[in-house]
Amino acid sequence: MVSIAPSFVINTSELANCLARLRASTPLIQCLTNTVVTNFTANVLLAAGASPAMADLPGEAGDFATIASGTLINLGTPYAEQRNGFLEAVAAANSSRTPWVLDPVAIGSLKIRTELAFELRSLDPTVIRGNASEIMVLADSGSGGRGVDSTDTVTVAAQHARDLALRSGAVVAVSGQEDLITDGTRNVLVHGGSDMLTRVTGGGCALGAMVAAFLSVHDDPLVATVAAHAFYSAAAERAVLISDGPGSFAMNFIDSLHLVQPQELKDKAVLS
Amino acid sequence: MVSIAPSFVINTSELANCLARLRASTPLIQCLTNTVVTNFTANVLLAAGASPAMADLPGEAGDFATIASGTLINLGTPYAEQRNGFLEAVAAANSSRTPWVLDPVAIGSLKIRTELAFELRSLDPTVIRGNASEIMVLADSGSGGRGVDSTDTVTVAAQHARDLALRSGAVVAVSGQEDLITDGTRNVLVHGGSDMLTRVTGGGCALGAMVAAFLSVHDDPLVATVAAHAFYSAAAERAVLISDGPGSFAMNFIDSLHLVQPQELKDKAVLS
Amino acid sequence: MVSIAPSFVINTSELANCLARLRASTPLIQCLTNTVVTNFTANVLLAAGASPAMADLPGEAGDFATIASGTLINLGTPYAEQRNGFLEAVAAANSSRTPWVLDPVAIGSLKIRTELAFELRSLDPTVIRGNASEIMVLADSGSGGRGVDSTDTVTVAAQHARDLALRSGAVVAVSGQEDLITDGTRNVLVHGGSDMLTRVTGGGCALGAMVAAFLSVHDDPLVATVAAHAFYSAAAERAVLISDGPGSFAMNFIDSLHLVQPQELKDKAVLS
Repeated sequence: MVSIAPSFVINTSELANCLARLRASTPLIQCLTNTVVTNFTANVLLAAGASPAMADLPGEAGDFATIASGTLINLGTPYAEQRNGFLEAVAAANSSRTPWVLDPVAIGSLKIRTELAFELRSLDPTVIRGNASEIMVLADSGSGGRGVDSTDTVTVAAQHARDLALRSGAVVAVSGQEDLITDGTRNVLVHGGSDMLTRVTGGGCALGAMVAAFLSVHDDPLVATVAAHAFYSAAAERAVLISDGPGSFAMNFIDSLHLVQPQELKDKAVLS
Repeated sequence: MVSIAPSFVINTSELANCLARLRASTPLIQCLTNTVVTNFTANVLLAAGASPAMADLPGEAGDFATIASGTLINLGTPYAEQRNGFLEAVAAANSSRTPWVLDPVAIGSLKIRTELAFELRSLDPTVIRGNASEIMVLADSGSGGRGVDSTDTVTVAAQHARDLALRSGAVVAVSGQEDLITDGTRNVLVHGGSDMLTRVTGGGCALGAMVAAFLSVHDDPLVATVAAHAFYSAAAERAVLISDGPGSFAMNFIDSLHLVQPQELKDKAVLS
Repeated sequence: MVSIAPSFVINTSELANCLARLRASTPLIQCLTNTVVTNFTANVLLAAGASPAMADLPGEAGDFATIASGTLINLGTPYAEQRNGFLEAVAAANSSRTPWVLDPVAIGSLKIRTELAFELRSLDPTVIRGNASEIMVLADSGSGGRGVDSTDTVTVAAQHARDLALRSGAVVAVSGQEDLITDGTRNVLVHGGSDMLTRVTGGGCALGAMVAAFLSVHDDPLVATVAAHAFYSAAAERAVLISDGPGSFAMNFIDSLHLVQPQELKDKAVLS
């Protein structure tokens, strides 16, 4: 853990305040996500204090986006019907100023999701979250990872992430051993967490949903995104201490999201 | 916990008998349910002693309904293909006298599921289970909740639930801090349980599946529905005592469904 | 546990070597599987040391099969879109020599999956894995089980499994109290495990994915399939010792897949 530089643009007590506000407001978070992680994602949001709804059906997704406090678009299993739901939800989110997160899962060699990710990139996402390989593809500078695994590091992806942020207008979050969050100008690293999160399916996908939830409690998407990552790291650190493997870790992580106190978020972020 | 009134219409030892019969008969329960909770629902049924099958495919759902001991129709993620499966399964269930449960998840403002719920209401469901807001919408007297969360209480919904029962011919179960089960004439409250069930996704949806399972072990759908709710409450009470948060609660709840003894159901229900 | 006969065709230290190689190579395993078990299956593979990807979308499934180290085709919820994905993935797997596993879930009375299973049987699966009733149907000698439950025993299915192996050219694995793995000539029984696996949804389905993972680390599909089953049994035995019910068993099983040491696999298999 690195101490926070005095010049740091984020007042770190704001991170704690974000979590407190999240729990006080129970934001309604719409997740259009993949079939592998829907259950885990919903439980992660519930444990954090948000109210998840997996409303991705064309004919309903748009109406839901207008009442949601945040929307997640995750490309993990982009079936034809859900693709229509994506576009409907994004249009409605943009019309009603609902912040939304794009998670371009496993883009690169897989054609359908890759094309879709570029289309969505142009539709003003509030935040784009992915691993280094995914972010590099979306910044037009990488060929993709290995399935859902990154084959690039956050350090390698940093400049590309800044470029993507400037081009898209979105805050960009790159997940890895440490997480980089950037709006192209301001750059924040979030430390801590646990490698064990990579051994639980949906560890990254549910983080995208968490970002959507935190966007509802702070006007600056950079701060909100940092707070979501800091909260996630704090919960993972708690969980790994009492876990024997990825099964107990997943359970303890959910418990920890319920138990982490706002002040635990304060020392997780540092100016990059 | 309220003691049971002597005039109570249910012989409460029947509740214990229902659980014993369920475990002895391993009923085959067909679930046409949402993608968020399929896994949890199947594990809940397995832990209780039933045999779940998520057979919702058009071309198969009808054939399966004819051999199932109970069928659940849950509207949580009603994709086009599954909607056809719903109608096929319901038609076959009605022809073959398989009892079926309707769970009108999040109806109100979401158009597709709301229209579908009204269509299904007219097709003779054996039981309708939902939260207060959902039941009020289906009784033509509410505008819906907030996503999957109820914004109304069981007390407010009680008269509407009775109206819905009389109109539809179904037993109606309203889940909340205490659960109301009514056939329009007889009214039963089930006490106990744990608020922690609202922090685990599928807590309500899997209860609908449990009701379908209990319908196979008692001829009176009111008694079967009460027994399912009493069993659920007993398991939740066991689980919450040894849980640190929603992650461990979900695990302990599944264990508890396996461990609860029939006599633990006896004191859960009371005449309303 | 039976001691291993000297004439045994498998050098049992190879089983240990398979697990060590799996963990060293982190094979990319493509799962086209059912919506009930995707999450559990992915977590099982991650705990074992493989990298799962649930890439089943037509337009992507074929491309993914060419880069995967093994592919699973599981017929549990064969929606129309996924059926197209199955055929695309199998064609690409065969072209690129990616080994693939067929799991004919609940075939028999359900028409769509049963027809599909016979079509896939003719497309050169590397391994076919199922319960006794499913294997008998696919060997043209049974009418199917009861939903996903077998109504036949491994002993009854043994000759049919051998016939199916000879006819299809696949290794055939029959799961039950003990598991039979056969290529029609060589027959191996894998002992141990736990009945508790039948109380967790996806216990069998995730084993099919595990077989796909092990196919990437041994050239002889029979040895690879035996190793996968032996590993699964060893993990289940560890888990059941410390579990109170199916909820804690599922968690401990995932942990155990992470913790089992290669040498624990050595005494699980015996010549039949």
